[in-house]
Amino acid sequence: MLGSFVVRVRPMKSVCYQYCTGRLLHGLFLHLMERVNPSLAGELHDTKGQKPFTVSPLFGHFLTDSGAKKALEEEEYWFRFTALTEECCEALVRVFYGEAIPNATVMIEETPFLITATDLAVGGRRGWSGLLSYDDLISTANGEPEITLCFQTPTTFRQGKINYVLPDPNLVFGSLLRKWNAYAPKKIPQEIKNFIFERVGVSQYRLSSRLYDLGDHSLIGFQGKCKYTVLGDQNEMTRYLNILADFAFFAGLGQKTTMGMGQVRRLG
Amino acid sequence: MLGSFVVRVRPMKSVCYQYCTGRLLHGLFLHLMERVNPSLAGELHDTKGQKPFTVSPLFGHFLTDSGAKKALEEEEYWFRFTALTEECCEALVRVFYGEAIPNATVMIEETPFLITATDLAVGGRRGWSGLLSYDDLISTANGEPEITLCFQTPTTFRQGKINYVLPDPNLVFGSLLRKWNAYAPKKIPQEIKNFIFERVGVSQYRLSSRLYDLGDHSLIGFQGKCKYTVLGDQNEMTRYLNILADFAFFAGLGQKTTMGMGQVRRLG
Repeated sequence: MLGSFVVRVRPMKSVCYQYCTGRLLHGLFLHLMERVNPSLAGELHDTKGQKPFTVSPLFGHFLTDSGAKKALEEEEYWFRFTALTEECCEALVRVFYGEAIPNATVMIEETPFLITATDLAVGGRRGWSGLLSYDDLISTANGEPEITLCFQTPTTFRQGKINYVLPDPNLVFGSLLRKWNAYAPKKIPQEIKNFIFERVGVSQYRLSSRLYDLGDHSLIGFQGKCKYTVLGDQNEMTRYLNILADFAFFAGLGQKTTMGMGQVRRLG
Repeated sequence: MLGSFVVRVRPMKSVCYQYCTGRLLHGLFLHLMERVNPSLAGELHDTKGQKPFTVSPLFGHFLTDSGAKKALEEEEYWFRFTALTEECCEALVRVFYGEAIPNATVMIEETPFLITATDLAVGGRRGWSGLLSYDDLISTANGEPEITLCFQTPTTFRQGKINYVLPDPNLVFGSLLRKWNAYAPKKIPQEIKNFIFERVGVSQYRLSSRLYDLGDHSLIGFQGKCKYTVLGDQNEMTRYLNILADFAFFAGLGQKTTMGMGQVRRLG
């Protein structure tokens, strides 16, 4: 099961953030999971490497106030949690559609936020929300030879000791492949790596780097749009590539996807 | 010897271009070389692979006229030829500072252009012009751990069958290394390739793709700025990297540098 839970919130007082809100929402995510499934929460916290969820930053209109970002009392903001396993999706359904949040109020760090709405497009995707099975995702994927990804929040890869901030097709789809094969019931064959190296090129883009402040350290990432094109004849591999591109919506991309980095979705 | 000859011109009548002017200036380059050194001109024309010169497009203010670019009679334009060998530099000195161009007029395709000035910063670099020895370039290169390149015209690399349009450090400096070692009297050791892979990262950029129409076909390239940072302790390899970055001014970068692509210079 794949889920993306969009949560619309309004701060009960204005609040300034010195660094990324993804880190604070990561804390909220674990806190809410703890309420509905303590053993899962512990597991998600302790797991090293791949994790079956992502957390976005807080999106919306911020004022810039001497270096800090200020969220305003009267404004609406939103964030999303995504989940890549049945257990994780179920826990999030219980969080947002059960009794887990008294007075529809969550604490983001020390500020109470009122939940004004939650979006969950059951059986599909709408905007940034969605809930569907891996089989649904596979059966709705097409065989388009052109795939455009929008990197909504700073995205970056690790390559040895290097923080690699270019959307190289091998890194983008290689990273999605690892995550897919970690959680999906039907695996995608490793042969797709050769296909990507030999046949998938970048054909159009507009991108720039952006510093993402995680609080205790910062990472450079890239934002913008990038189109990938499959060269030559299309085959089953092209369909796998489309599956991975659609999967990015739930899986996120690259490093620190549980702290707001790598929020990605396909365009068109 | 390394030379960059900037030529300022004014069209004697307005003229429309359907595709890149780099291809037309390539024709002019060979035609002018033919006048001063026919055997060299033949050699440059026939050589496959690396060539010891580059040709820019025509720079300046163009009007866009139903898809075509229009150069205006009353405007000044400029282009540059660069050369990476003594013989090539000498021939270009004879072209622009000898008697090779009667009435200071050159034909770009079928349009006469008046040469209004030629720039050549002897012993250094000024703007886009310069003339210096490989030894001068080596001795003036510093050991900066940060290098920013400005990709002035669309730049692209070939990787297998893929036209690769991201400024990957390995491709950027690997391409410069090959060209340096083809023409420079003092070689740079191949070990720098490992150093680049392990220690050179992209740290800041703003880039976008752009279609470059070569007339008989088009290639996608990228334009913009990209900063590279050497991680960890600096050593002799950092100095080699700086030499290659400075060399890019004369060498151009990537594919089709004799047709106007890959015009690059270091900033700062």
